[in-house]
Amino acid sequence: MSPGPGTVETIARVREEVCALHAELTRYELVVWTAGNVSARVPGQDLMVIKPSGVSYQDLTPEQMVVTDLYGVPVAGNGDGAWGNPELSPSSDTAAHAYVYRHMPEVNGVVHTHSTYATAWAARGEAIPCVLTMMSDEFGGSIPVGPFALIGDDSIGHGIVETLKNSNSPAVLMQNHGPFTIGKDAKSAVKAAVMCEEVARTVHISRQLGEPVPIDQAHIDSLYARYQNVYGQ
Amino acid sequence: MSPGPGTVETIARVREEVCALHAELTRYELVVWTAGNVSARVPGQDLMVIKPSGVSYQDLTPEQMVVTDLYGVPVAGNGDGAWGNPELSPSSDTAAHAYVYRHMPEVNGVVHTHSTYATAWAARGEAIPCVLTMMSDEFGGSIPVGPFALIGDDSIGHGIVETLKNSNSPAVLMQNHGPFTIGKDAKSAVKAAVMCEEVARTVHISRQLGEPVPIDQAHIDSLYARYQNVYGQ
Amino acid sequence: MSPGPGTVETIARVREEVCALHAELTRYELVVWTAGNVSARVPGQDLMVIKPSGVSYQDLTPEQMVVTDLYGVPVAGNGDGAWGNPELSPSSDTAAHAYVYRHMPEVNGVVHTHSTYATAWAARGEAIPCVLTMMSDEFGGSIPVGPFALIGDDSIGHGIVETLKNSNSPAVLMQNHGPFTIGKDAKSAVKAAVMCEEVARTVHISRQLGEPVPIDQAHIDSLYARYQNVYGQ
Amino acid sequence: MSPGPGTVETIARVREEVCALHAELTRYELVVWTAGNVSARVPGQDLMVIKPSGVSYQDLTPEQMVVTDLYGVPVAGNGDGAWGNPELSPSSDTAAHAYVYRHMPEVNGVVHTHSTYATAWAARGEAIPCVLTMMSDEFGGSIPVGPFALIGDDSIGHGIVETLKNSNSPAVLMQNHGPFTIGKDAKSAVKAAVMCEEVARTVHISRQLGEPVPIDQAHIDSLYARYQNVYGQ
Repeated sequence: MSPGPGTVETIARVREEVCALHAELTRYELVVWTAGNVSARVPGQDLMVIKPSGVSYQDLTPEQMVVTDLYGVPVAGNGDGAWGNPELSPSSDTAAHAYVYRHMPEVNGVVHTHSTYATAWAARGEAIPCVLTMMSDEFGGSIPVGPFALIGDDSIGHGIVETLKNSNSPAVLMQNHGPFTIGKDAKSAVKAAVMCEEVARTVHISRQLGEPVPIDQAHIDSLYARYQNVYGQ
Repeated sequence: MSPGPGTVETIARVREEVCALHAELTRYELVVWTAGNVSARVPGQDLMVIKPSGVSYQDLTPEQMVVTDLYGVPVAGNGDGAWGNPELSPSSDTAAHAYVYRHMPEVNGVVHTHSTYATAWAARGEAIPCVLTMMSDEFGGSIPVGPFALIGDDSIGHGIVETLKNSNSPAVLMQNHGPFTIGKDAKSAVKAAVMCEEVARTVHISRQLGEPVPIDQAHIDSLYARYQNVYGQ
Repeated sequence: MSPGPGTVETIARVREEVCALHAELTRYELVVWTAGNVSARVPGQDLMVIKPSGVSYQDLTPEQMVVTDLYGVPVAGNGDGAWGNPELSPSSDTAAHAYVYRHMPEVNGVVHTHSTYATAWAARGEAIPCVLTMMSDEFGGSIPVGPFALIGDDSIGHGIVETLKNSNSPAVLMQNHGPFTIGKDAKSAVKAAVMCEEVARTVHISRQLGEPVPIDQAHIDSLYARYQNVYGQ
Repeated sequence: MSPGPGTVETIARVREEVCALHAELTRYELVVWTAGNVSARVPGQDLMVIKPSGVSYQDLTPEQMVVTDLYGVPVAGNGDGAWGNPELSPSSDTAAHAYVYRHMPEVNGVVHTHSTYATAWAARGEAIPCVLTMMSDEFGGSIPVGPFALIGDDSIGHGIVETLKNSNSPAVLMQNHGPFTIGKDAKSAVKAAVMCEEVARTVHISRQLGEPVPIDQAHIDSLYARYQNVYGQ
């Protein structure tokens, strides 16, 4: 497959965006070493762009971002002048990102981290209850738990999609593993990852000394509707 | 409304100050993404200056700060050369700030955050007991909880004012929501936000392993009187 | 009192040192806003140098450091070219530092913070048990609690000295207040403040999930003797 | 002993690497003051390179790294132009590093820290259970506890080697002391130190509010085999 001029420019732009957004993962301390990744769908193409495997965040460059099809297979041309470095493999989590893009056409960005507090809830297999107005705004209810799944096939992707399609939440806590978040674009998925860790931490700390006060479901619905629709986030 | 020359200079100064103070919120990790805001009353005017909605802290410039009346309505002229950018809306929390300025004439600065430990106490609806000398100095007693209130009308502002008018504390924990702080100027309100999180965290951690030793009310009163009056903070 | 040439140079050097050491308090996040201070005795003089009151850490300059006698009274000449800024008052904790210098001639540096975990133990009035080899090295046993004391006279200084004179520890947790540390020089007192918070945090976290294993007193004594004498710290 | 030209170049390269890797210890906040160290075996020589004792991380230079034999004795020549600074002693933990190199020929890098959460588990003498997929990948099971051992002879080194030779884990928690990690090179040992603290923290936090869900041993084995062999880390 040989990209036309328009595609080349689009991919270059998506690579810039995906590369730059990893700085938010380190800014908010959601990742250590190389354990987290951002991807974005290439608009109008059956392609995605994702972090390469094993590269430290401070060393990432746009050219290193890997272009794959929606089955996670790197496309021919990654190594030429237009598409980047042939020596880098896509993130080991690529299959899960790709599954989400295949099955959720409205999703254009996916983020995976092992952020500490979200992963702590995931290790107990416990959903985060919605006891904060900020959480009502962003998540519209609790943050659900997805199944335990091994890496290597579509199990993780399937677990993400099956869990999120029944929830307002753009975040799912994969059991014993960590959070995956989705968005209408990559920046929204990164924001969801940041806010997921924030509410995971705040609700955890609140519960350490007693039970948080529940929020009425009608209030949660009202806050969510306002934030998503009226307020226009 | 067309501002005279003196007002233009005053507003420019307040915008600089409000913009710069947001750096203290990130320095002390009181906020993530765009979830916190500082405002200041414009001296001698029925006007206030507040953070625009949805702008990241590292991108804030003085020109982006939004001037509103004391009902939170952006004033005509925000978009001209003197008053800034017409495309930015004021923070979604503007109505609460404005209510405080209308009902507490001695207050010239307001800060809102979702800082982690203060919000954790707020989620349980539990006041922070005064068990630290530093807390006696700054807060003169416990940090009280305000009512659960939905955004969209004056409920939040009313809850803040009704709670603070019966307390020494410049900070209130709005239930399930987070802290609001006030001050004689914006810097004092920011200091109160920083100290609120500091004592929320320290008292939380202390209580994780047992009960803190109470401080006699007479000692709290003595420390508060000295710090506020003699020491001259 | 007019300082001679040698004294002027010595005081300038001590001011540089005291000013620079405050950067360690912020580096290790032991302080917020202006709530912590370092002092040093001026060698060969009945004088000390201490942080001014109410100045932010990022704004500190050597010239602002205040020279006082060992009763905490600023010396004449602070405002001239040699001795600095006449408008700044010494830290509100100066009386406690001065008391220590008067009563512990071997001490040449004192540090006070409200570092989170140490203050959390102080709020419960509970000594930190010695359950770490690092703590045996540095503190030679538990970190003791000093009495509750109000600011304004010699009560705090007296409580520090009475507690430390019966302990190997260079750190004392003043009840409901926070840690004070001492050293043979100001850098050693700063190191003690850093290590005090480190062991306060680690032992706290260890105890959250059970009881730490005690270390035999003979082993504590052996580690302390080696670190202080053989190893030469 | 006088090094030949090839050895001089190799040692210079190892010194650069060991010096630079200390920046990862501070980046991930695994160390305070001077309390942690990295070493590497010199390829093809019975020599190792280790941090000097008592030097702050921000002041480290490659020339300061100390070359010792595999009994921890600084080699003649550290002070000449080729081998560095004669005034610096090797880290007080050198004997433990050296013992590991003598008894584990496949190990070429060793790291020691007192990172907070790992040390908290060590203080309770409790192994970290494997309840995270990331932990299965990196550690292949639980992170074991080694014996209490005093500094000054081979007790610490012996405890490290005896514990690690029966475990998949590249990390051991020495009781009441802290973690030591090993690797096929120094960077791998640093990665193990970073990941050890990460899983120590996440599992600790998870257990604060209940019991994490166990992972089947067959799944742990499968994840470990894939990550170490197929994935090629």
